[in-house]
Formats: sequence, C-alpha cells, structure tokens
Amino acid sequence: MTLGIAVIGTGRMGADHVRRIDSVIGGARVAAVADLDLERAGAAAAGIEGCGVHTDPAAAMAAPGVDAVLIASSGPAHEAALLEAFARGLPVLCEKPLTPDPAGTLRVMEAERRLGRRLVTVGFMRRYDAEYQRLRLTLDQGELGRPLMLHCRHRNAKSPSFFTTEMLIRDSVVHEADATRWLLGQEITAVQVLRPRSTSYAPQGLGDPQLVLFETSGGVVVDVEIFVNCGFGYEVRCEAVCERGTASIGESGGLVTRAAGRAAHGIPQDFTIRFAGAYDREVQAWVDATRRGCVEGASTWDGYAAALVCEAGVRAQESGGRIEVELPERPSLYA
Amino acid sequence: MTLGIAVIGTGRMGADHVRRIDSVIGGARVAAVADLDLERAGAAAAGIEGCGVHTDPAAAMAAPGVDAVLIASSGPAHEAALLEAFARGLPVLCEKPLTPDPAGTLRVMEAERRLGRRLVTVGFMRRYDAEYQRLRLTLDQGELGRPLMLHCRHRNAKSPSFFTTEMLIRDSVVHEADATRWLLGQEITAVQVLRPRSTSYAPQGLGDPQLVLFETSGGVVVDVEIFVNCGFGYEVRCEAVCERGTASIGESGGLVTRAAGRAAHGIPQDFTIRFAGAYDREVQAWVDATRRGCVEGASTWDGYAAALVCEAGVRAQESGGRIEVELPERPSLYA
Amino acid sequence: MTLGIAVIGTGRMGADHVRRIDSVIGGARVAAVADLDLERAGAAAAGIEGCGVHTDPAAAMAAPGVDAVLIASSGPAHEAALLEAFARGLPVLCEKPLTPDPAGTLRVMEAERRLGRRLVTVGFMRRYDAEYQRLRLTLDQGELGRPLMLHCRHRNAKSPSFFTTEMLIRDSVVHEADATRWLLGQEITAVQVLRPRSTSYAPQGLGDPQLVLFETSGGVVVDVEIFVNCGFGYEVRCEAVCERGTASIGESGGLVTRAAGRAAHGIPQDFTIRFAGAYDREVQAWVDATRRGCVEGASTWDGYAAALVCEAGVRAQESGGRIEVELPERPSLYA
Amino acid sequence: MTLGIAVIGTGRMGADHVRRIDSVIGGARVAAVADLDLERAGAAAAGIEGCGVHTDPAAAMAAPGVDAVLIASSGPAHEAALLEAFARGLPVLCEKPLTPDPAGTLRVMEAERRLGRRLVTVGFMRRYDAEYQRLRLTLDQGELGRPLMLHCRHRNAKSPSFFTTEMLIRDSVVHEADATRWLLGQEITAVQVLRPRSTSYAPQGLGDPQLVLFETSGGVVVDVEIFVNCGFGYEVRCEAVCERGTASIGESGGLVTRAAGRAAHGIPQDFTIRFAGAYDREVQAWVDATRRGCVEGASTWDGYAAALVCEAGVRAQESGGRIEVELPERPSLYA
Repeated sequence: MTLGIAVIGTGRMGADHVRRIDSVIGGARVAAVADLDLERAGAAAAGIEGCGVHTDPAAAMAAPGVDAVLIASSGPAHEAALLEAFARGLPVLCEKPLTPDPAGTLRVMEAERRLGRRLVTVGFMRRYDAEYQRLRLTLDQGELGRPLMLHCRHRNAKSPSFFTTEMLIRDSVVHEADATRWLLGQEITAVQVLRPRSTSYAPQGLGDPQLVLFETSGGVVVDVEIFVNCGFGYEVRCEAVCERGTASIGESGGLVTRAAGRAAHGIPQDFTIRFAGAYDREVQAWVDATRRGCVEGASTWDGYAAALVCEAGVRAQESGGRIEVELPERPSLYA
Repeated sequence: MTLGIAVIGTGRMGADHVRRIDSVIGGARVAAVADLDLERAGAAAAGIEGCGVHTDPAAAMAAPGVDAVLIASSGPAHEAALLEAFARGLPVLCEKPLTPDPAGTLRVMEAERRLGRRLVTVGFMRRYDAEYQRLRLTLDQGELGRPLMLHCRHRNAKSPSFFTTEMLIRDSVVHEADATRWLLGQEITAVQVLRPRSTSYAPQGLGDPQLVLFETSGGVVVDVEIFVNCGFGYEVRCEAVCERGTASIGESGGLVTRAAGRAAHGIPQDFTIRFAGAYDREVQAWVDATRRGCVEGASTWDGYAAALVCEAGVRAQESGGRIEVELPERPSLYA
Repeated sequence: MTLGIAVIGTGRMGADHVRRIDSVIGGARVAAVADLDLERAGAAAAGIEGCGVHTDPAAAMAAPGVDAVLIASSGPAHEAALLEAFARGLPVLCEKPLTPDPAGTLRVMEAERRLGRRLVTVGFMRRYDAEYQRLRLTLDQGELGRPLMLHCRHRNAKSPSFFTTEMLIRDSVVHEADATRWLLGQEITAVQVLRPRSTSYAPQGLGDPQLVLFETSGGVVVDVEIFVNCGFGYEVRCEAVCERGTASIGESGGLVTRAAGRAAHGIPQDFTIRFAGAYDREVQAWVDATRRGCVEGASTWDGYAAALVCEAGVRAQESGGRIEVELPERPSLYA
Repeated sequence: MTLGIAVIGTGRMGADHVRRIDSVIGGARVAAVADLDLERAGAAAAGIEGCGVHTDPAAAMAAPGVDAVLIASSGPAHEAALLEAFARGLPVLCEKPLTPDPAGTLRVMEAERRLGRRLVTVGFMRRYDAEYQRLRLTLDQGELGRPLMLHCRHRNAKSPSFFTTEMLIRDSVVHEADATRWLLGQEITAVQVLRPRSTSYAPQGLGDPQLVLFETSGGVVVDVEIFVNCGFGYEVRCEAVCERGTASIGESGGLVTRAAGRAAHGIPQDFTIRFAGAYDREVQAWVDATRRGCVEGASTWDGYAAALVCEAGVRAQESGGRIEVELPERPSLYA
C-alpha cells in the first residue's frame, strides 16, 4: 500500500516535504496539499498525479486517499490542524515546535491522551541524522561508560532579519534540548544562560552568541554555544564526555572517539556501507532521467573503454612491462 | 508517471536494487523480477503489489507495465539481456561490467549504434558518490589548475574465496579506470603493474597488493594501490594533484583541498545541506512506520518537554540566573 | 657569557630542569643545586662540571658563578627563596604557583615593587607552547575579529592519589586562568563552577569532572572542562570563538581555523619550518654521541647507497625505463 | 666536557648550524669557523667567545679546542674537508650529499675504512624528525605486520632558479631514498621514473612533477611524488602499507594508523610529553632574556591574578554560585 499524505502548509519546509515524498523517498504519495495561499499550494502540487489542492487543512485531510498528515504550516496554525487530524484518526508528522507555547502543547497532549493512542510524531530531525544516530548507539553500547557532560555547538552563518533573542532558545536551542533528552534518556531539570558581549555582526538588540547550560535528571551538565551570526557557516557539533572516553560528531563528517590513548574514527567494513548513498543516487538518477525520456550517465562506450583498460592491465600484470591501450575512435552516438 | 522496472537477477545486488526501488527511492516501482532461481526471485518480490515473478528475463521484460530494465544478473548473462532490452526499445541500467570481455561489449555497442540511440546506462556507481562528485566539481571549476597526477587507494578488508589476480584488475581497479576517465575527461593510454611481495594474509596464488599505473591522453599519471586483503576495512581514496593545489577524498568523510598555504574542508552554509539526509530519513521512517500501523519517533510528550525547557531558557536569558524546569509526571501513553 | 643558574629543588620538576639546562638548551649552565635531600641534589648534579651541591637555597644562590635562580621546590618554600633571590638581586624563574595562596603572592609582589624592578618570571609554560603561541598570534592579527568565547578542555588520564577537589582549580584550572588572561589581554572578573555527577573512576570525595565558567573584563565567556580522571590520556584543547570565525588548538597537532566557509590548517612554506626540530635533534644527537666517544647515525655507507640510488634515478629519468641499482657488498665497518 | 666544533662553510645552512650550536642545543660550542668569504665567516662567529675565524678549513680544524667538525660547505668541497678531518682523527657531521657523485663517496669510504673506524655522520635529518621516528618505531614494533608499500609525497612550494630535472632526484628524492632504507632496513634494488606533463608553473626545461618508483631487496614497492613547484607549501608525507594496517605521517601533525576497523592517532598520556617543547622553550627564553639583562614573560602580577581567580574558583566550587574576583589596580611596575 502506498501511503497517501496530506501536506498542510506549502511554504519553504512544506514544499520541500512535497518534493521529498513525490520523488525522493519510497512508499508514499502526496494525496492533497493545503495552503492559505492557493497559488503556492498549486505550485507545490504541480505535476503530481491526483493531488488535490486546498486552502482549508480540514478539506485536504478529508480528500480521497488521505491516510496521514504532514503539518508544515506556521507554528500558530499547528494546534488546530493537529486537533483536526485527531478528529479523523490520522497519524501526523508535525514540524517542530508542536505549538508556540507549552500551554498549547499541553492541550494537544491532553487531546491525544483522550484518544488513548499516539498519533503524533514531532519533527525533531536530528534523531534521524546519521551522526547523531551513531553517537547515540555509541553511548548506548556503553563502552565509554556513563555520560557526564555534553559540549554542544550550534552555529548559523547569519540569522534571518526577524530573529529575536528568545528565538535563540525556542527555534535553535530547542534542537539541543531534544537531542539531550534523546541521547541521554534523561530529563532536563534546570537551565542557565551566560551572555558574552555580542558580536558586532548581530542585528541591534540580538544578544548573540550565548552559552546555555542544562542540568539533567541524571546529573549530566550540558553546555550549548548558540551563535546564529557566526559568519563562517552552519555547524552542529556535540562531544559526549563519558567515564572512559569521549565521542564527538560534527567536525569533519564522522564520529570520533577518544578512549584508551587513541582518538579514532571507524572505517567502514564494506562497500555497501561506504557507497550506500551512491547506489541510491545512481538508481534514482536513472529513474528520473528515464521518466524524462533521457539516457544519461556512463554509456556503453564508457563500459567498453573500461574493459579495454582492464584487458591491458591484466596483460601488464603478466608481463611486468608497460602495455598500451588500443582504443578505437569514439562513435558519434557517444560523443 | 511511476516508472515500472523489470529487475533481471535477484542475487545480492539485484535483491538490494529491488528493495531500493520499492522502499528507498521515489518515482518507480518494481513491475517484474526474473531469476533462474524462481524461489529467490519470489522472495525478492514478496509483498510488492503487482510484481510478476519469472525465470526468463525476456518474459519479465514483456510483463505489463514494464518501462525500463535493471540488469543485475551474472556477467555472462548481460549480453543476451541487453540485446533483449534493445529489441523492446527499453532503457537499461546494467551493473558493471557490461560484459565479461571487450569483444562482447563491442557487440553490444554495435547493436546500440544500429538502434541509433542510447538505451544503456552502466552502473559505475562512483559517479554518484557525493565525494567523487565534489571532487569532479572542484577539478572542473579550475581553481586548482590542470590535474597532473591522481593517487588512488582501493582497499578491501578481505577478498572472497574465489578472487583471482586478474579480478584485482577486472573487478576492482575497473572502478578507478572509469573514475579516472570520468574525473579527467581523458582516455587511459597505457597501463603498468608493479607487484610487491604479497601479504601473508592473501590466499595462495593471489598477488596482493599491487600498484597499477595509468597514463592518460592528457599526460596525467595515475597510481592505484589495489589491496583486497588489507584487513582493516574498506577504503577508497583519491588525491588529485593539480598545478595549484590538491584535492583529496575518502579520508574522513569529506573533500580536503590543499592550496595557497592551507589544507581545508568546506563547511556547509545551511541546515538544508547539513541535515538533508536527516530530513529524508525522518520522513521515510515516518512513512514506513505508518504503513506498518505504528507511531514511532518523538512524541507529543517530547514536544512538551522541549517546550518547557525552552520556556525556562527564555526566563534564564532574562534573569541571568538558574531556572528550574517544572516537568509533570510523564503520562503512561508516552512511557 | 654563559649564564650560571642555581636550581632550587631537585624533585621531579627540578631535576628535569637541571637536565634541560645542562644538555638541551644553549647559553646556560647549572652552577649550583639545592635540595633538603642532599643525596637527591647530588644525583641531579652528577657529571656536571663545577656544579655545587647544597641543602640551603641561600648557599646555592651565594655559590660562585651564580647569575640567576630557578625555583622548583615545593610551593610553601617559594616565598623564602624568592625573597632571598631579591636580596641578592638575582633574576628568578619560579615554577607556578608563585606561593600557595594570594596573601603570600601579595607579599612577594610588594617586595619586588620595593626593589623597583622586575626579577620574577612565573613558569606558566603554556605561554611557550607552539600551538598556544599560534593561537594568540591568530587572535592578535585580528582577522577573526574580537574574541567572544573560549571553550577549553583540560584532561588528565588519572589524578595522583593526593589530589583534592580544590586542586582541580589551584593546580589544573590555574593554567586556563593564566592562558585566558594571556590570550585575551583581559582580567577574569567572575567564576562559577558546575558540578556534574562524578565519574566512578574518581577517588572517593573528588568531584571530577567539573565545568568552570569565567567571565572577563572584556565580556568574554570561558568554559573549562576539567577532568583529571578521564582515563584515555592527557589533552588540552582550546577553541576561541570570534566574530568572524573560530581557532582551535589541541586536537591533532595544529591550529585549525574556521572562517569564510572553510575549516583549515596552515601548511608550512619551507623545510626550515617543517624540519626545524629535526635539525636541532640531529645536531644535538651528534654532539651527545661525540661527547660519549661514539659515532652513530647515517654512515658513509648510507651516503654511498643513497648516491647510487640517485645515480640510477637520474638514468631512469632519462631512459624512461627501469634501472637496477648495483650495490657492492656492505663493508664490515658499516655492518 | 663541552664539545668544541669547527664549522666549515657559513652559508645559509652553516650559519644556521653555528646559531644552533651556540644558542639552541646544549653541550657544545663553536670553536672555529671557516669560509672562503672571510666576512661571511666573521659575521657567523660574531659574539661567540673564543671562536676563531678562518678561510682555510684545515686551519679551522687545527684551531685550539676543536674536538669535532661540522661540514656545511658546498658539495664539491666536502671530499677534501672530510679527508682533512680523517687526517686529524676528528669526528665529522657532514651535510648531504657526502660528495656530488658516487665515485667521490667511494673514495671517502675507502679512506675511512683504512682508518679502521667510523668518523662520519651524514646529515640525513629526517631520521631525527619526531614523526619519522614514530613511524619507524611503529613499523619496528610489528603490530601492523610486514611493510609492503610506501606512498611518499615530497612537495615544495617553488623550486630555486638553478634547479634542474636531475636535482629532483639528487637533492630532493635522495631524502626518500635514505628514509626508505632507514625505515625498512632494506636496500633499494631498482628505480623507475614516470613523468606526467609538467605544471605550467615550472621553469622552462624542468620536468615537474614526477613519480619515482623504488623496488627494495625485501620486495617493497615505493612510489614517490616529487613536485617542487606545487605552489601551496612544503609537504612531506609517507604512508606505510603493511600486512595488517597502514601508518601515515605528515598530514596534520601526527602519526595516524589504520588497523582493525579504525583510523587513529595517539593521545599523549602525560603533560611532560604534550608540553615537552614548551618547557624547553620556556627555560631557553628565560635564559636568553636574562643574558640580555631583561625580565620578560609572566610576572608576579600574573601570578597574583591567577591566584585570586583560583581563590574565587574554590569558593565557587563550594557555594555553587557565581563569585566575583576582586582584583586591585595593577601596579605600574607590571604595566
């Protein structure tokens, strides 16, 4: 069964989710979209077979073939959309924050409890990042011992014009709040914020960077540098300091452990790991080209040239000398 | 339009491609599978709606809804399957090598030329690896100047029992042969092989490692270490030495350039780059769970806990002091 | 003029300084040593021409040929030794801490002010570490903009048995206190300490690790992880977060900057930089061997073998082929 | 006994050795210098007590107090100087190459054999580089198994104007020739050179870069990239590929091993290792300043400020709160 999804909100995030469901991931289709801006909704749905276009989220959820809902509208619109999905018994993936304030989230939670079953998945996407998953696995395996501290860095090149000091916490550090809870399986029990002098590149009135400190129910201390105008790029790092070593992510593309006198990163044991993404992209690229009526990528000529090189290579292995490759002229079909 | 694909061969690679088309990538479905071993074909197709199961590749290609063919059968079976696909005018993605020897590839190429249009894409998957693509982009942008040398390492932890000295070239170094041609846009004109004393971990009769040397039509010298019993893991590295600097891939998850007195790697400028994979996996995981009738991932409770932490964080920003987080008991629904 | 030094205290640090002055650095000699344990003092001075051995620091300072004093005795003995050196007008290098508490240091400072000129250099050796020096130079050059935060890690594999929670600050974090002041040219204005649950590898009663937070007169926030039973090794790291980028030391042997979309480390421009230490060690090793009456290192035979290889190499350049090296039998003198 | 050294040749290398013996290393003094250019010799000897200045190497060697000879004159002058030292029975450290061609080296070797004892140490300084020493130790310890290949990179930013294609081998690759022999304890038995198209940044007539291939008596294959106009800096790298893993030096300041599924670098276990150089530089800097009549470095004020911060830190540990540091005004003596 292919899952039919109603996407509520087709702004930047929502339109990206429509594209993702339609042409990146498997097993699902976009059955309907809704946006207050009908034109924007239509643009997102363009070219998707059987995808209804609506301004009313409820209408999109009621459209034929809708099995589940993805909410990517603005924060204040989430609560109504969630309750609507609950009324229809539809599973929901809701972008964070669930609602703009804890009171709204509490109402949603109580409504879900009245249903007696979970319908909501919150879009804390770091839980799906390959490095975060490896970090959690490393902590769970226990070889490094119990975690004692987390050192986190959360850096954006530049904040959007509407960013406020509060949003440093609510929009940015909220990811570290969830990641801390998810990595450690502990609740955060106290928060403190140290505020250095601001960078001269921050807009007037924005206190940036800040050092946010969490204490957890298990006695872990977490420091988070949040710096949304760091200038040089987007960087999310986390080092877990444990009793027998540390594990870091986010520095140059992989998890590094420090233990027993060595800093190390793993080497994959197999091409299926190293090139997993390459295989996915290869087949996706071929499918995409074929749907457009094109043939792209390595051609029969490329296969032939490689075969001739290998032939020469095998003769070179045998002879110990230098073997020339005799390549005919390239046919015009493969120019 | 969803592309209907016939997958020929359902061994390790073929079965993996079936899984990929069915539940990882978008825009395609497995319409039919063929394998000499009918049971293996059936196992690969299990649970895929409307997927025919065949022993004869031609029958699979003739099945209703087949728009394209993916060939993952054993090498000697490729030529017949390719010609069959040509007869039906179906686009083909064919695993490398196209055929076991250059003579077969030449016959396939001539058949395709008689058709007068390209149908074949060869599965040289390194062309789709994110690092190789970044390396080629770096070379094409020209900031490092013209390439002069490539230093390649191709290491497997352990070779399969049936591996021969020839296969070092035909099965392994063939990837460097294609990558050299694709990265440089040049043909390989000569090959030489240096053979050090073999590792004592290689099976009797296998000369492993070897140093394979290519010369190209543009005067580039390429050295390839092929070592299929290196013991410690799977590693594919490439350093392109250019007139004004070098660019390396495969060492710790990213492209490193050396130029103008600095060794550097890029920092992504945006979360959509850093967490692209996380978003894809998140939505895929939610779709997969929903199709199974499950609700997994971050719950409303997680959203609520994060909201309370943020609330305390904003108060801590304002007060400068330590703010405790008042979390109610976790409802049993979210246990 | 060769500087005559009286070394006060010949325990671990003092004996090491005696060795350093005698046979590692240039321009100085050990003229006298003093230690309460006369035997230990004698052992340190063994084999050093004209080096007097004393139990009384004042007697060592009064010995003929003493131009300067190095104090490496235990902390409580520093004050008297410093005042003694002042009385004689001798320059002093004193191991940190100057005295065990601020009151003693104040008395020393007032005595030095009465002299009206500086005689004391305090042994904060991080100021002489090549990486710290590069970090400070990077900050001073100003390309990264004004510093906003320092993230410091200070890890020891295991604390000595007598270590106390206070010593975490007085013996360990004191280095970060000085490094902060020296790197930034700012005073520390407030301190706070967060204490996570202790590692189970810490001795009973020792709160380890801790997170120490400094605020400075220039509005910089500094966090210091001090962890003296981290188990895996000795590690001192520092990342300076500035307005336009960051600079880190201590991770794998060099300074890394993050700025303008790149993480980078410098590449030396010259062999005199890359191999400066090698040249020093080479000549030192030759001097040491010659003083012992030995000839070690690369021999005439090694020079001859290299010359024959080069000869073959030049012929190989010219011929394009493989040239064998004709090496005669190795003479027994060079066996 | 302080070793009296006659330095023959006071060009760039020789003058640097004079400085090194005089003020960097311990246990030796420059007793005499010789250079055809008397003014240059005098400049090198300026300020060194009792250092004679000569134009004739033999006169320098005959000067009072000369115990050993360091030859840093031009290559063609080495042979006569070596024979002169032999005549006087003086140990010699001779810069590479011993002589410009193998015939001269052979004559020197025969003269030394007639003496019946070794006097010569050749200045192959890589044997004293900390990373090369760690690499050799790693190979000797045998955990990685027998070496099978070495991959070497030898890059200079820019070649001097007088550099020739032959000098690529004789002046540059000669270091890899010695390093190969020293690391492996094997002789080089054959050489081959591959010459890619030259960089457009090489002077007319210079074939740069080149790939030099060595075979050794133990069956090891060595490839050396020599590139003396790489533009971006000076870089010397070496990866030893062994039966159970690899060990690399020269990439970012330390030895990296690949073995058993991990790429790792060691973490020092002790501050005496991490900060060994800092201690040496600290004491040398203090000696140098004191000889100049200066007092530099961390002052009593710095010691006092650090003590006050520690005092506040200990109170912060106890109280759990934020403690301000009460620093008095800085006395003018320490301004």
